[in-house]
Amino acid sequence: MARSRRLGIEAPGEAGQIARIMTSTLSSVLFDPRRIALIGASTDAARLTARAQVYLRRHGFTGELFPVNPRAETVLNERAYKSLRDVPGQVDFAYVLVNTQNVEAAIGDCVARGVPVACVLADGFAEAGPEGVALQRRIVDAAHAGGLRLLGPNSMGVINVPARTACSVNAVLEIDALPAGRWSLVSHSGSVMGTLASRAAARGAGFAKIVGTGNEADLSAGEIADMLVDDPDTDAILLFLETIRRPDLFERAARRAHAAGKPIVAYKLGRSEAAAKLATTHTGALAGSDAAADAFFRAVGIVRVDQLEALLEIPPLLLGRRPVENPKRAVRIVTTTGGGGAMVVDRLGIAGIATAHMLDTTLAGASRDFVATALNDARDADDADLAVAVIGSSAQFRPQEGVAGVIAAKGRNPICAFLVPEAPAALRLLSGSGVAAFRTPEACADAVRAYLAWQPPRPVPDAGDVAPARALLGAAGDEPGARAVFAALGLPNGAVAVDPDAPPPLAYPVALKAVSATIAHKTEAGAVALNIQDAAALRTAAAGMRARLGDQISGFIAQPMAKGLAEAILGYRRDPLVGPVVALGAGGVLAEVYRDVVLRLAPVTETEARGMIAEVRGLAPARGYRGLPKGDLDALARAVAAFSRLAALEEVTEAEVNPLIVLPEGQGVVMADALLA
Amino acid sequence: MARSRRLGIEAPGEAGQIARIMTSTLSSVLFDPRRIALIGASTDAARLTARAQVYLRRHGFTGELFPVNPRAETVLNERAYKSLRDVPGQVDFAYVLVNTQNVEAAIGDCVARGVPVACVLADGFAEAGPEGVALQRRIVDAAHAGGLRLLGPNSMGVINVPARTACSVNAVLEIDALPAGRWSLVSHSGSVMGTLASRAAARGAGFAKIVGTGNEADLSAGEIADMLVDDPDTDAILLFLETIRRPDLFERAARRAHAAGKPIVAYKLGRSEAAAKLATTHTGALAGSDAAADAFFRAVGIVRVDQLEALLEIPPLLLGRRPVENPKRAVRIVTTTGGGGAMVVDRLGIAGIATAHMLDTTLAGASRDFVATALNDARDADDADLAVAVIGSSAQFRPQEGVAGVIAAKGRNPICAFLVPEAPAALRLLSGSGVAAFRTPEACADAVRAYLAWQPPRPVPDAGDVAPARALLGAAGDEPGARAVFAALGLPNGAVAVDPDAPPPLAYPVALKAVSATIAHKTEAGAVALNIQDAAALRTAAAGMRARLGDQISGFIAQPMAKGLAEAILGYRRDPLVGPVVALGAGGVLAEVYRDVVLRLAPVTETEARGMIAEVRGLAPARGYRGLPKGDLDALARAVAAFSRLAALEEVTEAEVNPLIVLPEGQGVVMADALLA
Repeated sequence: MARSRRLGIEAPGEAGQIARIMTSTLSSVLFDPRRIALIGASTDAARLTARAQVYLRRHGFTGELFPVNPRAETVLNERAYKSLRDVPGQVDFAYVLVNTQNVEAAIGDCVARGVPVACVLADGFAEAGPEGVALQRRIVDAAHAGGLRLLGPNSMGVINVPARTACSVNAVLEIDALPAGRWSLVSHSGSVMGTLASRAAARGAGFAKIVGTGNEADLSAGEIADMLVDDPDTDAILLFLETIRRPDLFERAARRAHAAGKPIVAYKLGRSEAAAKLATTHTGALAGSDAAADAFFRAVGIVRVDQLEALLEIPPLLLGRRPVENPKRAVRIVTTTGGGGAMVVDRLGIAGIATAHMLDTTLAGASRDFVATALNDARDADDADLAVAVIGSSAQFRPQEGVAGVIAAKGRNPICAFLVPEAPAALRLLSGSGVAAFRTPEACADAVRAYLAWQPPRPVPDAGDVAPARALLGAAGDEPGARAVFAALGLPNGAVAVDPDAPPPLAYPVALKAVSATIAHKTEAGAVALNIQDAAALRTAAAGMRARLGDQISGFIAQPMAKGLAEAILGYRRDPLVGPVVALGAGGVLAEVYRDVVLRLAPVTETEARGMIAEVRGLAPARGYRGLPKGDLDALARAVAAFSRLAALEEVTEAEVNPLIVLPEGQGVVMADALLA
Repeated sequence: MARSRRLGIEAPGEAGQIARIMTSTLSSVLFDPRRIALIGASTDAARLTARAQVYLRRHGFTGELFPVNPRAETVLNERAYKSLRDVPGQVDFAYVLVNTQNVEAAIGDCVARGVPVACVLADGFAEAGPEGVALQRRIVDAAHAGGLRLLGPNSMGVINVPARTACSVNAVLEIDALPAGRWSLVSHSGSVMGTLASRAAARGAGFAKIVGTGNEADLSAGEIADMLVDDPDTDAILLFLETIRRPDLFERAARRAHAAGKPIVAYKLGRSEAAAKLATTHTGALAGSDAAADAFFRAVGIVRVDQLEALLEIPPLLLGRRPVENPKRAVRIVTTTGGGGAMVVDRLGIAGIATAHMLDTTLAGASRDFVATALNDARDADDADLAVAVIGSSAQFRPQEGVAGVIAAKGRNPICAFLVPEAPAALRLLSGSGVAAFRTPEACADAVRAYLAWQPPRPVPDAGDVAPARALLGAAGDEPGARAVFAALGLPNGAVAVDPDAPPPLAYPVALKAVSATIAHKTEAGAVALNIQDAAALRTAAAGMRARLGDQISGFIAQPMAKGLAEAILGYRRDPLVGPVVALGAGGVLAEVYRDVVLRLAPVTETEARGMIAEVRGLAPARGYRGLPKGDLDALARAVAAFSRLAALEEVTEAEVNPLIVLPEGQGVVMADALLA
């Protein structure tokens, strides 16, 4: 059926041109519908389900509205329809406002009428347990079969601010007029989409499109973001995320956004374990690791902020700019208040960003020209990545002084500003002039950190030929099997199978291990013997293990005893949200106690692996801590990259080398244990 | 001279009643002067030095002003005086506005005229290098000799808001009227004192007194806070600090404030190393460790916030309350927006605070009664320390709903609120009703964390009789000497002196160490031999050391080899700001790489030591990590407490036991090395 193809759910890819047209048509009905049906519109203006109509009218919607209500002739003084079937002509967009139990029928009506996109307000779907999951599945299946795209359920709708199409029940629309701007906002949470718009409005910042994606049963934040890349009204895309769904579409959006010079900024919940758990129940999201989400954002070029207000304040710092190559991680500060400047220095220092120089103009005053001249110098300094202006009380009472100086300042490096007093007018003045301006020292420092952490989307490394490794997967249930797979990917195996009765030549002393697919904790089970000095001792040790463990043992392996400079943990898993990730951590209890683990999307190149190594604090000894000998970091980087090629083996869900012993420079690394699942 | 005694600088103490009177007289002239001299008042209203007069008049000062200007008959239409000597009658307060080089003469004039207190605006003193230090010393000496108390230099003055005495050049006074309130603010930074007042005003919060202490050459923030404890207009004291001076007065103020039920909240710069360094140059402060400052605040019952706005938002959460005993470190949340609630859960989780329960009223709506009822339950719940209300868009448009519910809620536990949209009116409404209300999830979570970290001022532990330890200090330059001192304080020595030619009976294997007052790195120098199995091996090892190190060796010690469950570092030093501190950290590179060190003011009790042990993450193995055997934490606590008794030995500036080996339960701890300076 033609409609199904035109607005089908196939992720655009091979189809190229056709996919483009589909997306463009979808975005026109989603963002700029001319004929909107409000299914379940209430006749009681005070009710939530009346709000879409109230707000569409209040904000000046210029198209046609079709309230659907089986029990009313008119709804809020507009002609109503008993059923969607009674609405004349094509409907571009249906906002389904009915109760959860009536949604399925409404979706059926939309399909029957050939509506291209419907937004579902009700909750009680995937976030509400097995029945809700099944119900959500059914409406998605019905929609897809009928060529209907879905926003939600649990969605607060779509607002196209410049077009005055406020198709949403969000109470932020109680405002007389939302300011229009050139950023767009996509939010999982419906209520937050409104509150962020209200906070943005208070700083004079407006939005182009505002979309609440709710449960994302069909349309996900990534796909919406992808449409916004092509939106001529959108210069930057802001995301409020509770989880990550459809990382493939997300990545596509991020790469295209980067190519188009449209920064994407994300504030994502779930940094704490408690919140990650909450997200899984709140919108039916899967629980992925937040560190994996971080790795994902980094890999695809999305800027992640940590402080809520930084989301709304950072865009001017990114617009028209590219990620800084080899950042110095340093700023220059020009401040009209010593104490205010020190607040920013302090916060930046906590984030690991140096203040190369701070000029305190307290004595010289905050005149426009003096501040501008000082900032010109700061922006052109070679010892810093950007200039930060800190403006004191003049920001509140005399914006024509220091604040005007900030706006007038020119230079190579970007500039941003922290206003120390309550100075909303100056905040608006600055952001209106394209200068990122911050209300708090915390948001200012967070934005500077996020800007300097910004990476271009990485080229996806080729995992190379993993066929030899794949061929070994069948026998990877025990340690020698896992070692063989890892060795096929490029790690040094280091261990050999031994027949204790006729051991091969070995470089004693060695460690002897019983091979077993059933023993989980080998050391505790007595299946490991260290420091074996010769073949006779090896025989004795093996005999002891056989006596203790009997049938659980299927063989023995031995490897030379290794004394390393540091121990690392190398981990791999398929994160349920973002897919294959490789982790490098400090060995022993450190990774866990200090959460000293660095994650990246897998596979990684050796260069990326070197970046990971530099970030693991507990590997300091291997980096040549306090003049001690350095570890073989090249070999470690090669090992991390090789291990990360597991990403190409879809069959593997989890793998670990723990510990991976880092020997002195030139001597390589040694797997002391290996596990694959 | 009578005046000198009346307003002398003696810290009130023994003198009791007289001291009380002196302080009370000082605070009356400082906060409520009736006759103010403005020395160096400018005739040009646009100049900084004219502002005090402009602002005093604008804000309705009801006393007499005496502008002193040698070149003018009138200043801003008021009669001027050529010299302070010409001013008739008693002057309560002199604001010295002259340039740095003229300050000394002005102070001389104040002394000659018997002025009780002078505030100095100029900078260029202790913060500006050796000459400034000397100049500052001279004005302080002259003031003290003449019975004059000094505020500043580098001070923006004093504002008594309810009395309409705005004796300050701070531009915040450009405002038509500062709202009066029942909190007082003391700030090292003059510019910040104004900008904080402006931020507070924007939330409808006002101050009673606002004081800029600048360089604190004489009057310090602690002493001002102490006066504010007795100020009937002040219910809470807010501090913006760049350093800590006069910890004795600070502690006195904090203890008296606690007794009076007046919370003190501090925001202190210098958390990063960069900022700590900046503080030393900015106001001539000494560089102390921020961790030591933290320990100080904790010990004396000062609440420290991390986020700037939390300083202004937390007071209602503390007013009328006491520190929570044995906090559950858990909150209950009632939210009208799932996404907004999740932001707080996330931030609290990062701070280690659990959400025992979150009720999302999205479905039920944000009606006043529903929210109030839900919050009543949350406030009375046994599984949480406090209730957090999160109010979405209704906070902006319908404060009579959710926000009113927050105000109406009753219960045993405290309540605070985070408003998700921009809702300044609701913020004012809440704080006006005594509910702490937060603009950002970060400030909300920070305040909850700070509230739950709040401790009553601790009883100062008695260090006991340290005379035996003191008697050994003369010989403490080498390891046996240091061990002897530590043993005299109560640590197990563990090592004995040995004559290698006639070793005493030892529990072999032992470690042998050469004793030397000159060798810094014994292992590297070959002055340590481990795992010595018998007397013969001991003799051989000692002979080798003698051959290598010759005269540098003054003897030998031996101690049994110890295999511990964990290694700790025990440190002691006199912090230049807050005095004796004891530090417990994870051993090896961990303390440094992970900054995994916990500090407390010394001495500490064993109970406090146990609290320290619980906070060192790297001691997880000794706490019985993953079912492994526990370490002897009782012995470790005893060792920390004993070691902290060094505080009573003023001669000791620094001491360290590194590592201190923690043996299994019941087996004690072992000093593996000891150092004292």
